[in-house]
Amino acid sequence: MHDFTYYNPTKIEFGKDKENNIGQYIKESGVKSVLLHHGKGSIKKSGLYDRIIKSLNESNISFKELDGVVSNPLLSKVHDGVQIVKENKLEAVLAVGGGSVADSAKAIAAGAKYDGDVWDFFIQTAEIKAAVPVFTVMTLAATASEMNGNSVVMNEKTQQKYSIASVHVNPVVSVVNPELMHTVTTEYLAYSAVDIISHCIEIYFTATHHPKFNSRIVESIIKSVMETTEILLENPTDYDARAEFAWVSSQALNGLTPAGTAGGTFPNHMIEHALSAIYNIAHGGGLSIVIPAWMKWYKNQNIEQFERFSREIFGVNDANKGIEMLEAWFSKIGSPISLKEANIPREGINELAKNAYELGKLWGLGESYSVEKIETILENA
Amino acid sequence: MHDFTYYNPTKIEFGKDKENNIGQYIKESGVKSVLLHHGKGSIKKSGLYDRIIKSLNESNISFKELDGVVSNPLLSKVHDGVQIVKENKLEAVLAVGGGSVADSAKAIAAGAKYDGDVWDFFIQTAEIKAAVPVFTVMTLAATASEMNGNSVVMNEKTQQKYSIASVHVNPVVSVVNPELMHTVTTEYLAYSAVDIISHCIEIYFTATHHPKFNSRIVESIIKSVMETTEILLENPTDYDARAEFAWVSSQALNGLTPAGTAGGTFPNHMIEHALSAIYNIAHGGGLSIVIPAWMKWYKNQNIEQFERFSREIFGVNDANKGIEMLEAWFSKIGSPISLKEANIPREGINELAKNAYELGKLWGLGESYSVEKIETILENA
Repeated sequence: MHDFTYYNPTKIEFGKDKENNIGQYIKESGVKSVLLHHGKGSIKKSGLYDRIIKSLNESNISFKELDGVVSNPLLSKVHDGVQIVKENKLEAVLAVGGGSVADSAKAIAAGAKYDGDVWDFFIQTAEIKAAVPVFTVMTLAATASEMNGNSVVMNEKTQQKYSIASVHVNPVVSVVNPELMHTVTTEYLAYSAVDIISHCIEIYFTATHHPKFNSRIVESIIKSVMETTEILLENPTDYDARAEFAWVSSQALNGLTPAGTAGGTFPNHMIEHALSAIYNIAHGGGLSIVIPAWMKWYKNQNIEQFERFSREIFGVNDANKGIEMLEAWFSKIGSPISLKEANIPREGINELAKNAYELGKLWGLGESYSVEKIETILENA
Repeated sequence: MHDFTYYNPTKIEFGKDKENNIGQYIKESGVKSVLLHHGKGSIKKSGLYDRIIKSLNESNISFKELDGVVSNPLLSKVHDGVQIVKENKLEAVLAVGGGSVADSAKAIAAGAKYDGDVWDFFIQTAEIKAAVPVFTVMTLAATASEMNGNSVVMNEKTQQKYSIASVHVNPVVSVVNPELMHTVTTEYLAYSAVDIISHCIEIYFTATHHPKFNSRIVESIIKSVMETTEILLENPTDYDARAEFAWVSSQALNGLTPAGTAGGTFPNHMIEHALSAIYNIAHGGGLSIVIPAWMKWYKNQNIEQFERFSREIFGVNDANKGIEMLEAWFSKIGSPISLKEANIPREGINELAKNAYELGKLWGLGESYSVEKIETILENA
């Protein structure tokens, strides 16, 4: 095992009705005012908004509001949030929504304690030294944003979808009530399943050092995601399946799966970020296109682990067969597996490859993912 | 899944030479003085003591010392520690050693912020509301004490081995350097392996609600423990095996395996505590005696999970066969599987059962583990 630091101080409040205590959780953390940050109105329709306001009022938490966060959250919205927090001297950010809202909230939280442009953190010209506390109430399980210090934001001017990672923006408390997720569409459930799987298998396949315990955890996550997704597609209000899906999604990207590994990279995320940035498709939908294509291209670089994957997940001994079965499963649950299905033309491949390559340079991937290599992978898709 | 709160704010610094930074970790936490707490001198022989002192001095951390902690740590030593911390107004406790030293340090940390007798927390007549910070440098992997808020202490006057659990005594930073564990005897390695397995399988078998993800995590832990134990018995300085063993031991009792389960109990620990309290045998050695006996007695209450265990861990479909194979494995690695092997006479069973029953009442087990039932289980052993 390689040396590592494991530190995840986020408190998860998991279960029914826990959103009704959000004011109390915030108060117990010594915070008196928040920016209430949310999306395009679905929490108002569901009644969740009213319950949050009631809980904040009961605990005397004052707040300003910023709504309108979209999937692939925008830098311009983050800038608005930073300004509101600074002008009103708000003490924290409360995100109510899915991963995009949480990600946007984290960027605001970091920007609120920084004099320059928050985008500096994303292009790595500045380092996050502090942030105001973040709280979340999640309505979607996929990104694990409720239990990590990651945030992905889209700079709409430059068409760059870039990320930060800092424990300073780990939520202090995250509420995960699976009942709030019963209304997620089957389309988004499928995208979420793909996203969760993608969070574990990147390092699983690419690490130069991967202890067996880590492989077992990843396989446990994947098995539970597949099992619960199939239950939920049949019966979206199966609470136990929804809950296990939600908890597993947090485990997939909270620091547990990479602990002790070395050399792992995120090439599928690198390429997918280009798809989302240029074609604005859902992250999970982009990933299910990229992953099988990448697996076919990459498998011989770590054939033993691909064989292990095929055996443990699908009970087959052949790496190619395992890849095919994963691709078929993505398709079965309703996530696209080709560029064509997502209406992305072959002529777009060069531009996608160039965009991904630039991000790859920032992530230290360099020429192992040259424009030509990324084009080859995308041709598979 | 049942509602739960997951909160584990301990930072783990895992890897080679990290003990040399312990002064810095303490300083970064804003602490300037500690009680340096350790065992019976092994850290002086190994040179670890000198490295710790050097690191504390380099970071200007002042300290007092209290050594002499034994396996099954004693309440009298805890009382000594509380007095030293209070008299010298020390800001924290630094444990250097195995689980017993960490447990003793946690009890001292809680006692240091309490006017009454720290034993009140163990017999549940008072609740821990605060504690001074705890830091650890671990020389043994077994109890997961480095990553949880648990402490087990022996009241030598009353022959009670009782426990506390509070996030207030979770270590702030724990150093886990697997190299410090290369010199653990094969005997203690075996006891540790049994202990780790015991931490997961109690809830695994007894919970009334146990999500499949939790089962998978437990099985992942058990498989990795068995695999790495066998490697280490052959080659005690295999770093990767030692490291995976150490990390898995933390995962077995850090809050992950029970999250979302309901109704789980710890009957094997209840009975073993009586064995340790009266016959002062090593905890792991006591557990390997109790567990197979308990499994044989209990299996029909949850036969499906016993069949799952047998299938997943040993590749057999029969619950009885799985129990036999676990018992045989305990024996193979050198841990006792009968009272006789530990020189505990049959006549002692009644006293053991009464001692365990009293603890069981405190743990809410009541008449489901009556004196007679515990006697029946111990007759199996």
